[in-house]
Amino acid sequence: MTDSTLLVLGGEPAPRLDRLAGRARVLHAPDAGALARLLPSADALLVWDFTSDALREAWPGADGGPHPRWVHTASAGVDRLLFPALTSSDAVITNARGIFEQPIAEYVAGLVLAMAKDFPGTWELQRRREWRHRETMRVAGSRAVVVGSGPIGRAVGRTLAALGVVVDLVGRTARESDPEFGRVYDNLALPELLPAAHWVISAAPLTEDTRGMFGTGTFALMRPGARFVNVGRGPLVVESELAESLAEGHLAGAALDVFEEEPLAPGSPLWDAPGLLVSPHMSGDTVGWRDALAEQFMDNFDRWVAGKPLENVVDKELGYVPAPS
Amino acid sequence: MTDSTLLVLGGEPAPRLDRLAGRARVLHAPDAGALARLLPSADALLVWDFTSDALREAWPGADGGPHPRWVHTASAGVDRLLFPALTSSDAVITNARGIFEQPIAEYVAGLVLAMAKDFPGTWELQRRREWRHRETMRVAGSRAVVVGSGPIGRAVGRTLAALGVVVDLVGRTARESDPEFGRVYDNLALPELLPAAHWVISAAPLTEDTRGMFGTGTFALMRPGARFVNVGRGPLVVESELAESLAEGHLAGAALDVFEEEPLAPGSPLWDAPGLLVSPHMSGDTVGWRDALAEQFMDNFDRWVAGKPLENVVDKELGYVPAPS
Repeated sequence: MTDSTLLVLGGEPAPRLDRLAGRARVLHAPDAGALARLLPSADALLVWDFTSDALREAWPGADGGPHPRWVHTASAGVDRLLFPALTSSDAVITNARGIFEQPIAEYVAGLVLAMAKDFPGTWELQRRREWRHRETMRVAGSRAVVVGSGPIGRAVGRTLAALGVVVDLVGRTARESDPEFGRVYDNLALPELLPAAHWVISAAPLTEDTRGMFGTGTFALMRPGARFVNVGRGPLVVESELAESLAEGHLAGAALDVFEEEPLAPGSPLWDAPGLLVSPHMSGDTVGWRDALAEQFMDNFDRWVAGKPLENVVDKELGYVPAPS
Repeated sequence: MTDSTLLVLGGEPAPRLDRLAGRARVLHAPDAGALARLLPSADALLVWDFTSDALREAWPGADGGPHPRWVHTASAGVDRLLFPALTSSDAVITNARGIFEQPIAEYVAGLVLAMAKDFPGTWELQRRREWRHRETMRVAGSRAVVVGSGPIGRAVGRTLAALGVVVDLVGRTARESDPEFGRVYDNLALPELLPAAHWVISAAPLTEDTRGMFGTGTFALMRPGARFVNVGRGPLVVESELAESLAEGHLAGAALDVFEEEPLAPGSPLWDAPGLLVSPHMSGDTVGWRDALAEQFMDNFDRWVAGKPLENVVDKELGYVPAPS
């Protein structure tokens, strides 16, 4: 499989794939046109710009046609790859599991602490040169519901627990004997869990089951003064309904790192929704993340060339990499 | 000892001392004049407003004179009580050890994460409705030097370690076999420890040994881009020299919760020093803290009345409550 053709979809800066030199023909598709033209000749596709929707258009229809046998996305979420022509094809999908978990968990812990201690309020007072002492919230002993029992949700839960937060983990399937959290709940438990939680963290994959799950009905279940964080995918949340819950003062605060449309438009009302912290989809992106993603891909490429099983293979039905059982 | 006289120095709102009703005569000294007048008749003194310097004036001189046999301060630091007339007297000093440790540790962890993830920059961009992705710092695996090996420094070290930070603890006395941190360093190790630290946390008591210890010389030892946090006492830091180090860009950021003079004057240049986060001496003050302080004092009052040993007795030579050995 020397001289196999690797196609790289989009993304600036491009990945550093030096280790592939002389072992693969590397082509770059900066846009949808190039992707459509080059895709039939590619053996493997690296989706470097995971925000692109171009693949859905370019992938050959149900009647088949030449296509890569392996698609790797430099992201944890694979929602943009779960279109029928790809999921029903024989192509294997792999993702970037392992790169983003700890950074995102730290980011969420930082948001929880920042909201508990009211850093936004303190720094606003600093701008006004105003010394105003307030009492803040103790995090140890508070309760969090983390929605998402994949590696990111688990890392978030583990990190909050290390701060003394009592964590309930919610996943697709309830389980009684989780090795780490004891019990994992499913969505049916939310009416029981949400009213007790000071923090609700969304770290779920985007699937047809989870799309829009955080809307008026869910926010109404949360306790008055609860705070909500989304580091999963934007469409998990109905943004207008979150803004309403904040405006009504039912939720005391929220933080969104992901949005229905990214980048968030300058005219979006979310920028100054009361109590809402906006960040530009960066929770997992610590210094060196791009190189780490490229290394991870090249490690899998080595396996592919050697005919070994790939790591991080996505279950195309579930929409994520299943946990080892 | 029924009907002993308790004098409460300052502070609004006053402590809730309901449990003492019928068991002690409680007098309130809202100001220095009242303190001087009432002090000779007091058996015990509760320093509720620990920012007051009035006691130094009011306490009888070396020739003695009637004075309380017990002074309790509703604070962790006892620096304002360490004047010779009191330290040389037979009065016992106790403090609020146990109340502030965990809240302060959470506050410091929040500041560390907020600086690592650049929340201040993100929220400034949010105000400008600007979507600008940046790479941030991973906290796990970074190094911190925590100066202060008392309960607050230990809680800070423990909480940072729970986030994966490698923590070096610095106290008054070096020790090889600390049960929690393995090794405790003394100040002599700072030239070796500081260059490696991403975070330097000041959580030391204010004594003649520690006053001004964070000045130009110490900041110069820190690695370029390091960040500094002070939650101890303001005079541990030479504020003008910290501002210089920030302005020169040697330190990447700092956070002060305590100041040489509190409240910080509206005209202070610290409010807009580059990279400096200012908060109004609130790191330990979570909801319910005043009641917790009052409860703690009343528990000690019960011991006092019963003739039992008091808890949290300050070593007047050391200037803090020594760790159990």
